[in-house]
Amino acid sequence: MTDRRTPRNPAYAARVHASLASQPFMDRLIAARATRIEPGFVEIEAALRPDLLQPGGHAHGSVLAALGDSATGYAAQTLLAAEFHIVTVEFKINYLAPAFGPRVVARGRVLRPGRTLSVCAAEMVSIAADGAETQVAHLVTTMMAVPTHD
Amino acid sequence: MTDRRTPRNPAYAARVHASLASQPFMDRLIAARATRIEPGFVEIEAALRPDLLQPGGHAHGSVLAALGDSATGYAAQTLLAAEFHIVTVEFKINYLAPAFGPRVVARGRVLRPGRTLSVCAAEMVSIAADGAETQVAHLVTTMMAVPTHD
Amino acid sequence: MTDRRTPRNPAYAARVHASLASQPFMDRLIAARATRIEPGFVEIEAALRPDLLQPGGHAHGSVLAALGDSATGYAAQTLLAAEFHIVTVEFKINYLAPAFGPRVVARGRVLRPGRTLSVCAAEMVSIAADGAETQVAHLVTTMMAVPTHD
Amino acid sequence: MTDRRTPRNPAYAARVHASLASQPFMDRLIAARATRIEPGFVEIEAALRPDLLQPGGHAHGSVLAALGDSATGYAAQTLLAAEFHIVTVEFKINYLAPAFGPRVVARGRVLRPGRTLSVCAAEMVSIAADGAETQVAHLVTTMMAVPTHD
Repeated sequence: MTDRRTPRNPAYAARVHASLASQPFMDRLIAARATRIEPGFVEIEAALRPDLLQPGGHAHGSVLAALGDSATGYAAQTLLAAEFHIVTVEFKINYLAPAFGPRVVARGRVLRPGRTLSVCAAEMVSIAADGAETQVAHLVTTMMAVPTHD
Repeated sequence: MTDRRTPRNPAYAARVHASLASQPFMDRLIAARATRIEPGFVEIEAALRPDLLQPGGHAHGSVLAALGDSATGYAAQTLLAAEFHIVTVEFKINYLAPAFGPRVVARGRVLRPGRTLSVCAAEMVSIAADGAETQVAHLVTTMMAVPTHD
Repeated sequence: MTDRRTPRNPAYAARVHASLASQPFMDRLIAARATRIEPGFVEIEAALRPDLLQPGGHAHGSVLAALGDSATGYAAQTLLAAEFHIVTVEFKINYLAPAFGPRVVARGRVLRPGRTLSVCAAEMVSIAADGAETQVAHLVTTMMAVPTHD
Repeated sequence: MTDRRTPRNPAYAARVHASLASQPFMDRLIAARATRIEPGFVEIEAALRPDLLQPGGHAHGSVLAALGDSATGYAAQTLLAAEFHIVTVEFKINYLAPAFGPRVVARGRVLRPGRTLSVCAAEMVSIAADGAETQVAHLVTTMMAVPTHD
């Protein structure tokens, strides 16, 4: 009997933090941080520094895509055994509104956990200085579990 | 009779270069450059600096997505009148192989030019030191033309 | 001030029923029926006749896609003025599990209503004889409002 | 050394015809036929009977999606060993123009053949009585090879 919603790796949260820190693109260029990590759910946040903005003052769409891809990939990672990691097979993003920040978060969850493939979705949300939230993008993705020493 | 494949803005190439330079995310963080600009076709290139790589030595997938989104958006932009600009409605990317570089390009083309919506596709290609090319990702997108002073 | 969640056409439900009945592909070949119609939300149901099944006894994936496309298109239609209709710009479907029925429903909702473009999502759910539900597919789509006498 | 473009099953064409004939949804309701079968490429055709049309006289979008899903799935199937079959993981379709027929074809090809996952694309083309072709939709998909007696 397989329960695919129970973490197989008790250190799943440390694994997410370590992996995010190992990616200079996410850790340094976007300065993304994991702000919530639960089984099947991860939230990733970034502050919208000026060099992440378009001339109109809203986030570059690729920043939102990168956050959503990370949040969903790590959401899937939380449910894997320690000897597996996640690779993105494909994703689709729909842009809903400009993200003015000053912060954006991606909230990724696993819709269907699988032994090999997991289907995940993320909401990207812009957070104003007063805490008001606006949904700015929606992402759906297929993630694949791969043995780490393949 | 509308010919949607003939540029309405004779300065379309200058427009692409100026727009790319105005985006710090593409211009400075990814250091992307437009290497070919034709009506309905744009190629964008980036050198894979270490901070654009994953720990395994290949490009972070979000770099490929950003290049593909830009190449297709600018491919659509080449066919617009000067008073319009392009916004991304949505895109989907499929990852095909790791992109080891040292360079990657996105070749974006317009599949179906429209007055409001254009459907575009891009191939992301990794280019080895000896010039050998490997297709690493495929992107399909819907782009929307928006009046610049809406 | 625009409230895009309030129906502009008070006869929105009759419109959905009439439109569905006008499509022989949905009305006769799939025998789909609208079972819930609310502003921004539509549920479409089909009984899984033998000729809608794959040899393994589950629904052909294209039946699920057709139901999801209809449910989301009509969800968007409920929010339009009477002189507009909806066309599908694009959709993406992820298959999550086989749909054994005997009934399947697609529950479509508008994520982001827009004057021209609306982003919608649908869950496709298989309903067993005892009423137990299984999520079998997820669809995300871009819908466009078009004047009916363009 | 693995050559993923050479068929492992010499009877690949017979397999496609038999599989299509075993699906009542494709064989009887849509009356689809495989008109070209090559390694990594399959063309599926349907005549646009009145009950496959929208009130405006063009094909229901779900017919195009069904043809594209089949053409890409069978394109992937041609490259598999006999003991595997293909299931659709996900697909995305962009609609480009109305399909007035009287015939439509989907031309599916494998972009990236894989041991487990294959990425494929299809062009859906409307064919007028005089043979003139119009591209009406574009589909991208992820297909998965599954052992037939799993």
